Amino acid sequence: MVGLKDNQLRVGMIGYKFMGKAHSHAYRDLPFFFDAPLTPVLQALCGRDETAVKAAADRFGFASFETDWRRLLERDDIDLIDIGTPNHTHAEIVIAAAQAGKHILCEKPLAMNLQEAAAIWQAVQGRDLVHMLSHNYRFAPAIQFAKKLISEGRLGQIYHVRAAYLQDWIMDPAYPLVWRLQKEVSGSGALGDIASHILDLARFLVGEIASVCGMMETFIKERPIGEMAGNLQAVQGEGSGSVDVDDAVAFLARFENGALGVFEATRFAAGNRNKNKIEINGSLGSIRWDLENMNLLEVYFDQDEPGLQGFRTITVTEDIHPYSGHYWPAGHIIGYEHTFLNMLDELINGIADQRQVQPSFADGLRNQAVMEAVQRSTVTKSWVNIADLLQEVGVSLN
Amino acid sequence: MVGLKDNQLRVGMIGYKFMGKAHSHAYRDLPFFFDAPLTPVLQALCGRDETAVKAAADRFGFASFETDWRRLLERDDIDLIDIGTPNHTHAEIVIAAAQAGKHILCEKPLAMNLQEAAAIWQAVQGRDLVHMLSHNYRFAPAIQFAKKLISEGRLGQIYHVRAAYLQDWIMDPAYPLVWRLQKEVSGSGALGDIASHILDLARFLVGEIASVCGMMETFIKERPIGEMAGNLQAVQGEGSGSVDVDDAVAFLARFENGALGVFEATRFAAGNRNKNKIEINGSLGSIRWDLENMNLLEVYFDQDEPGLQGFRTITVTEDIHPYSGHYWPAGHIIGYEHTFLNMLDELINGIADQRQVQPSFADGLRNQAVMEAVQRSTVTKSWVNIADLLQEVGVSLN
Amino acid sequence: MVGLKDNQLRVGMIGYKFMGKAHSHAYRDLPFFFDAPLTPVLQALCGRDETAVKAAADRFGFASFETDWRRLLERDDIDLIDIGTPNHTHAEIVIAAAQAGKHILCEKPLAMNLQEAAAIWQAVQGRDLVHMLSHNYRFAPAIQFAKKLISEGRLGQIYHVRAAYLQDWIMDPAYPLVWRLQKEVSGSGALGDIASHILDLARFLVGEIASVCGMMETFIKERPIGEMAGNLQAVQGEGSGSVDVDDAVAFLARFENGALGVFEATRFAAGNRNKNKIEINGSLGSIRWDLENMNLLEVYFDQDEPGLQGFRTITVTEDIHPYSGHYWPAGHIIGYEHTFLNMLDELINGIADQRQVQPSFADGLRNQAVMEAVQRSTVTKSWVNIADLLQEVGVSLN
Amino acid sequence: MVGLKDNQLRVGMIGYKFMGKAHSHAYRDLPFFFDAPLTPVLQALCGRDETAVKAAADRFGFASFETDWRRLLERDDIDLIDIGTPNHTHAEIVIAAAQAGKHILCEKPLAMNLQEAAAIWQAVQGRDLVHMLSHNYRFAPAIQFAKKLISEGRLGQIYHVRAAYLQDWIMDPAYPLVWRLQKEVSGSGALGDIASHILDLARFLVGEIASVCGMMETFIKERPIGEMAGNLQAVQGEGSGSVDVDDAVAFLARFENGALGVFEATRFAAGNRNKNKIEINGSLGSIRWDLENMNLLEVYFDQDEPGLQGFRTITVTEDIHPYSGHYWPAGHIIGYEHTFLNMLDELINGIADQRQVQPSFADGLRNQAVMEAVQRSTVTKSWVNIADLLQEVGVSLN
Repeated sequence: MVGLKDNQLRVGMIGYKFMGKAHSHAYRDLPFFFDAPLTPVLQALCGRDETAVKAAADRFGFASFETDWRRLLERDDIDLIDIGTPNHTHAEIVIAAAQAGKHILCEKPLAMNLQEAAAIWQAVQGRDLVHMLSHNYRFAPAIQFAKKLISEGRLGQIYHVRAAYLQDWIMDPAYPLVWRLQKEVSGSGALGDIASHILDLARFLVGEIASVCGMMETFIKERPIGEMAGNLQAVQGEGSGSVDVDDAVAFLARFENGALGVFEATRFAAGNRNKNKIEINGSLGSIRWDLENMNLLEVYFDQDEPGLQGFRTITVTEDIHPYSGHYWPAGHIIGYEHTFLNMLDELINGIADQRQVQPSFADGLRNQAVMEAVQRSTVTKSWVNIADLLQEVGVSLN
Repeated sequence: MVGLKDNQLRVGMIGYKFMGKAHSHAYRDLPFFFDAPLTPVLQALCGRDETAVKAAADRFGFASFETDWRRLLERDDIDLIDIGTPNHTHAEIVIAAAQAGKHILCEKPLAMNLQEAAAIWQAVQGRDLVHMLSHNYRFAPAIQFAKKLISEGRLGQIYHVRAAYLQDWIMDPAYPLVWRLQKEVSGSGALGDIASHILDLARFLVGEIASVCGMMETFIKERPIGEMAGNLQAVQGEGSGSVDVDDAVAFLARFENGALGVFEATRFAAGNRNKNKIEINGSLGSIRWDLENMNLLEVYFDQDEPGLQGFRTITVTEDIHPYSGHYWPAGHIIGYEHTFLNMLDELINGIADQRQVQPSFADGLRNQAVMEAVQRSTVTKSWVNIADLLQEVGVSLN
Repeated sequence: MVGLKDNQLRVGMIGYKFMGKAHSHAYRDLPFFFDAPLTPVLQALCGRDETAVKAAADRFGFASFETDWRRLLERDDIDLIDIGTPNHTHAEIVIAAAQAGKHILCEKPLAMNLQEAAAIWQAVQGRDLVHMLSHNYRFAPAIQFAKKLISEGRLGQIYHVRAAYLQDWIMDPAYPLVWRLQKEVSGSGALGDIASHILDLARFLVGEIASVCGMMETFIKERPIGEMAGNLQAVQGEGSGSVDVDDAVAFLARFENGALGVFEATRFAAGNRNKNKIEINGSLGSIRWDLENMNLLEVYFDQDEPGLQGFRTITVTEDIHPYSGHYWPAGHIIGYEHTFLNMLDELINGIADQRQVQPSFADGLRNQAVMEAVQRSTVTKSWVNIADLLQEVGVSLN
Repeated sequence: MVGLKDNQLRVGMIGYKFMGKAHSHAYRDLPFFFDAPLTPVLQALCGRDETAVKAAADRFGFASFETDWRRLLERDDIDLIDIGTPNHTHAEIVIAAAQAGKHILCEKPLAMNLQEAAAIWQAVQGRDLVHMLSHNYRFAPAIQFAKKLISEGRLGQIYHVRAAYLQDWIMDPAYPLVWRLQKEVSGSGALGDIASHILDLARFLVGEIASVCGMMETFIKERPIGEMAGNLQAVQGEGSGSVDVDDAVAFLARFENGALGVFEATRFAAGNRNKNKIEINGSLGSIRWDLENMNLLEVYFDQDEPGLQGFRTITVTEDIHPYSGHYWPAGHIIGYEHTFLNMLDELINGIADQRQVQPSFADGLRNQAVMEAVQRSTVTKSWVNIADLLQEVGVSLN
């Protein structure tokens, strides 16, 4: 492991948009709630636009800034590289950071495609560093609690997973051609951006996916160029351009343990601002969760007394629940941003303990394999085995 | 059309289990709420077991009974044949009833397979009779209201349909091998029994399905023989037998109008007694509905005032809503059984007006084609076009 | 008890508006679902307007009609008098019916005031007849199930009852001055019409109320005359008239067992068509119920495993639940009208068994005493003891 | 106003338990999300126990600590005094802080009784300082949005307010006699602690309360001494002691504008960890809100199209909603702690702009008058006018 000075974890962050804000906040806020073994220090923020990165560094509280990420990696006062740039940059940066011996936190999806993900994964093998993929929703207390219940066998054998991530932010045809809508920058659309979250949750809670069959669609195929929308940078220029990523994706899955999965992700579900929901049914019970009410977990136990069986709505905010004791008394809810605090606590403890954490780049690789399989199955209009794809790229994960 | 005596519609019903009860009740209760042009008369109930059918006839209020359905068809005091027997008997009875010139109401699914469905459909062509498939959920006021909104273009272009029918009544491995779990009697399991309902709802609300790709699973493959469970007759005998139908099914669909569909039906979703739910997203809005709260419809309009956009929970019980004026004042809910009353009102008006009603056997045929496609796609592990299957059986529906 | 012919219970009904429809339907529909020891026969319907009552008798299925209720009471082919007329007629009719030795079912509220209620109660004392007050909501399966849980001590010592009956049907100032808005016909407004329901539910579930303190308000004090609105007859004439009953009422209550009650009933809660809801908190658990989702009961048990405590949403439609086995399989909901069927089943069994049923006129008297106390407390602006009021009218109920 | 150095607002905080944590966090986190005109600086934390206050100062990030609040007030490097100590200390500290010319933020309830509240209010009159009462729930975005709707007349004339604050944290009889259960420290129980929140919300949204009538109860009258429970310090000693505050309180209210209010607060509502909910009905619409789902606001508009009327569930997380633009994209929820950030933003802007903010100590005084009226009405068992009480203490607020 890298040497850590004065029980500090000095962070070099690349990218300062939505995820840059979320991560920066989490590093700053973490010590208030957690007695982490290392104190995160916002050492340097990196971005190409000097004016913008300097302003962001001031706003987020970074001690310095860089305009070249290679320069950042060379600095010996940086312990952890946190990558929140668009997807097409992940591989190059992650591999270089690994070679530089830095700990790495990378935004999801890990890569543009499976080939890249495999290269990333290879790059971190055998190195003395901790790597983590930023699937923050794993760290909602309700999800961690669901994981505990499932691990303890409280739901029995899992039969079903159904998950959907529904958004509606690009339904207006006038919404511009931002980078998330361009394949060469994002790799895919709803698939990598939001389907990746629900398949990661499903893998976390239920286990590995064996095979998938999917469909993808682009409802609005041409969009205007030249405008900025929120914190998502649009292509510069005039006129309109083609959307070459998926607006929506759905796929069927078979898990290695025999469970059936039904997944759907879309940016065209009017009225759903950010509905990330998952249901799991097992032989002994079920759970239901929804990000928009993320403090609640619905749990059903088949062995409850006859007549009194029903989904329990649990407000997962008690000291007995995962992570909840760090925050507020029962019934005083936390929000979206706290998923990042919980995730960083895990990362920092992993770094301090010199142990690998989850979700790691192995998870990123597996997630990418599923996504690649979904894309291929859309083309071949048939099922694709995940193991075959991993073999193609020469990876043996078990 | 058959001659109708004294503004009566004389019903001969075959089968007297769950659906026999539901239909019988609806005929009896209908005149109280509706000013139907014909009065249904429970003329004769038919079943093979004389003792049982006689008792059921008494209980349901039939004037007579028969033990041979062929004898029932010969009676000239019967205007409408209502068929609620297990699926493997539908084709023979429906075709004979059509030849006898009776109006016909048949339980879903229409047939054991597409071949049979096509034969049934052929049998009613060119005859002076009204045929209806008993997809009662179309007649929930909230569904009728959703249909109206969609037809008026209030949701715009439809992008997404997601529907699930979740039950949990056979999760106990000790639950016996009833007829619904035997392919030679039922044709399929969750597919024909409950997936048929959600695909019928989807077709009703959104339009025709062009192609599908699905998966099916049987989680418990062997079950005990010899016990009765509720009103579902188990195979007689000792020991155990094989379950050769699907416990669960899921499929992706592409609609002719470009919408994407995600469908799932299972009898293994612990905690879901009868959760039949459907969501539809369009360019201008969305709807959500759930049978267990069937009086509610959630509606979202994209063009609501900014800041005030949200799903409206509408209690579909006002006089202005479909069918609701026949029952109780606003906020006084109706239940499951009323879907049958509404359906029969449509049937009886169709008979009186000498017009074909919906869902007809054409719907049954189309539904069956989708189900057949799902089954085939499960075997071939690839997508199947509905039009190809209809062509195979020589049917041109457009 | 009166002699009952041929296991029939011959019903003479007075009044044929909303409650006439609800009761008529229930008598007709009852034998289909219940094996009641007596078969209800719709013998005669009574109303002053010959044309209207004749039409209603035809529509509801009564064998005959009367235009004078005294004449109805004289008929010896009537076993049960069912009274659904406006409130100001209850006392005279009930007392005469008691003197005629008929069984009696009377709509709520029992009387115009406590004096009348006491007279009614006296009139049925010592007579060989069964009397019932039509508080149908007691017979929602979820309420019966809640009663069972509370009776078994599953909620422990009861600390709190909070109940509200919220409607919005007269919010439009143009809504006419129907009889329910005139004190000389109705006795009170929201108090007798809907607050009576929630206080009856509370008494049923928790026990007797010792004292109350309330407030009442009339928001719209003048309304147009001369129009009919739905099935509620407006005053005949021109111009406008005064509303002299309460649009809204709220009161605090102390129960004899130490529980605290908070009650509110209003016809001015925009968006609430018919929200009759009650929550009860005890030392071991809680329940919540809402008429608009009447098949659901939310139950909380304090002794559930730590971390897994939460309200269970129970779909009270299983065979194991009260009354549910008479209807449909689990998850197939019933509606408003079924509360009347369940209530009539209790009444008919009581008549057959020669035992008094509940809610009886003793309940009506107690409810009326609470309502009278609320009215007085509104005037005196202080608390009123129920026992004092009962003593005033010379009634000792314990 | 006090002179502010370098655009800093130097905070001296007294008390470091639950509210100390919540406020400290908010000061620290505020600059990340808001461009406040002053930067809060955690200058000094004050508490009597040197070891404990030092540890808390370290944990919360204060630059120094004090063990005597009088000493804190003397320091000229403190601009704002933030008081989070038990209620019986508020008056003395606030008055001294006012005399010292500090800006003041005080936890609710403002005082032990009306007399004290009036003295506090007098103490801040005519001084060049900003005072605020920490009713943080006013600053939930959904509440601010509701306020906007009501102020714009979107709900019309307000008829009804019903609010309840339900908790269950002291239901176990073994829960110790913490300070919140002792009258000499807390002044009252559920009344001052949680009823104060809902009456403050009601006053904020609907206007002033004219008169009230209430009841209070202590269900468990004796509790063990000597244990610590969470962050609430128990009386030191052995054996048990008397609970002399209310476990539960309920009251009726009449607002000056004619609206009716029904309020209830209890710590004995099993299953309700922190259910602070409020509903408001007006002539044109209604709103519903619940702290446990604090990002949602349900809104009903009477003038929505017939048939499409229903409560809209709005996820109040869009840039267009109050405060939401400071945080995350739509559908990414915030939590309990953010109500404090929003509140502090208002306070800091008020200090910077030299304008008084709300809720001020005038609100504290009015809230206290209502609470005093509730207590008196419980004793006199009759209604109490708020204006009379304010006159008693010589305050004229209009």
